[in-house]
Amino acid sequence: MARHIFHCPLRWSDMDAFGHINNVSFLRYLEEARIEFMWRLAPGEGSASFTGGSVVARHEIDYLRPLVHRHTPVAIETWVTDISAASMTVAYEVKDGDVVYVRASTVVVPYNLEAGRPRRITREERSFLEDYLEKRAVAV
Amino acid sequence: MARHIFHCPLRWSDMDAFGHINNVSFLRYLEEARIEFMWRLAPGEGSASFTGGSVVARHEIDYLRPLVHRHTPVAIETWVTDISAASMTVAYEVKDGDVVYVRASTVVVPYNLEAGRPRRITREERSFLEDYLEKRAVAV
Amino acid sequence: MARHIFHCPLRWSDMDAFGHINNVSFLRYLEEARIEFMWRLAPGEGSASFTGGSVVARHEIDYLRPLVHRHTPVAIETWVTDISAASMTVAYEVKDGDVVYVRASTVVVPYNLEAGRPRRITREERSFLEDYLEKRAVAV
Amino acid sequence: MARHIFHCPLRWSDMDAFGHINNVSFLRYLEEARIEFMWRLAPGEGSASFTGGSVVARHEIDYLRPLVHRHTPVAIETWVTDISAASMTVAYEVKDGDVVYVRASTVVVPYNLEAGRPRRITREERSFLEDYLEKRAVAV
Repeated sequence: MARHIFHCPLRWSDMDAFGHINNVSFLRYLEEARIEFMWRLAPGEGSASFTGGSVVARHEIDYLRPLVHRHTPVAIETWVTDISAASMTVAYEVKDGDVVYVRASTVVVPYNLEAGRPRRITREERSFLEDYLEKRAVAV
Repeated sequence: MARHIFHCPLRWSDMDAFGHINNVSFLRYLEEARIEFMWRLAPGEGSASFTGGSVVARHEIDYLRPLVHRHTPVAIETWVTDISAASMTVAYEVKDGDVVYVRASTVVVPYNLEAGRPRRITREERSFLEDYLEKRAVAV
Repeated sequence: MARHIFHCPLRWSDMDAFGHINNVSFLRYLEEARIEFMWRLAPGEGSASFTGGSVVARHEIDYLRPLVHRHTPVAIETWVTDISAASMTVAYEVKDGDVVYVRASTVVVPYNLEAGRPRRITREERSFLEDYLEKRAVAV
Repeated sequence: MARHIFHCPLRWSDMDAFGHINNVSFLRYLEEARIEFMWRLAPGEGSASFTGGSVVARHEIDYLRPLVHRHTPVAIETWVTDISAASMTVAYEVKDGDVVYVRASTVVVPYNLEAGRPRRITREERSFLEDYLEKRAVAV
């Protein structure tokens, strides 16, 4: 059981007219964390997993505390809460130490871009994902 | 009982490297629809409602069909599914006629920017929101 | 001699933390105007011109007045200031009536995406562009 | 004489539908480099320089080579090519070693946000900027 940690740099333009990191910008941060988790890590395990494309089927995202722009990255912990035949659920916490700004989860569907349709999760991908699986009751 | 309709223009840059409107771009579309619903419509009813600021506390968003970039806007229907003392839930459908691309909902908390804290919904705001209230079991 | 006019909708998120439309957002507006000019108009003249791709080689952009977010579009006038064998220069003004917010120009190179290299402007494209050609001394 | 170096992380969403870093995304990279140069470095010299706001008056940007998305940052070198009473010109190169993707320059006007108008460059700011001044003939 492990969590992947991505140190996400903020951009000045992620702030909105209220001076806070805009709620939509956080979805970009989750995208970066998810892509690093799925595309960099999975192939690092010796497979071409997920590189053929994947599609977001659903997001849930809770904004717990406002985040003000600063020059140091925020940490995004990423893990897996569900694996089914043709989808997986990725969970995240955007945080500084114990302070959590955002909790979220995304249902991701592996996709065969050439065939133009969803595909099943391979045995190799499942094996990779299981190392990050925490089947707990998620608050989100 | 009514729904607000916003005709949302797409931008070429909303497409991702797969040629589809990126999942995060849809949150921008919902933001535009919600701002038009809350900031333009509410004051139009004779109040300064919501103009003092509001904060997004939660999004849920389901991607039902991919949307390809085109030059005509998509329609976003916006309505209200819950009103509490200090928050409201806004629901949306991004669609062309009967074809729904995205279903989503957002919990919005009115915010007193000067005081730096949430505030209660006013009687005037509640009256405005009730015209758009559909307390149905939402699929999202 | 003509100018193409594009009515560009603003987005709330185009504002920066200072409450103005951010300087980078204007480049997005120009992109929308240019794409409409090149991709929609050119094929409308009966050709598949430019649809195979094009590349931006250079931008020059002058910010003359700050633009505050509002719900009505701004007008972008687009025309052509130079046509060479393998590139063209597009000029723009972002304006409300006589009030000009931004003046800019872009050098665009038609590109053969499949071959992965620039290509020459066709006779048909040149004919289309010449209708919008104003070879004046441009301030930008 | 020195150049400031900023290691700019790319985001997956900076790619456009052609698979390259979009031309507008580079302006975001320059913004990050410029903000780090002006806001972080200047105060580090013992002043509150530039923190009161500044405005972009002009950009020039040349795209020399396409940049493909990758997980390692690109280097942005930043220096100063002109200092006048109420503006400065910042120059940049986006590069990997000797390979230059983009050359650009920005005219920046220090701004008094409270008064709502441009202001002169202070002696302290000028002293800081002079360390980065290269008054050479710039290709851009």
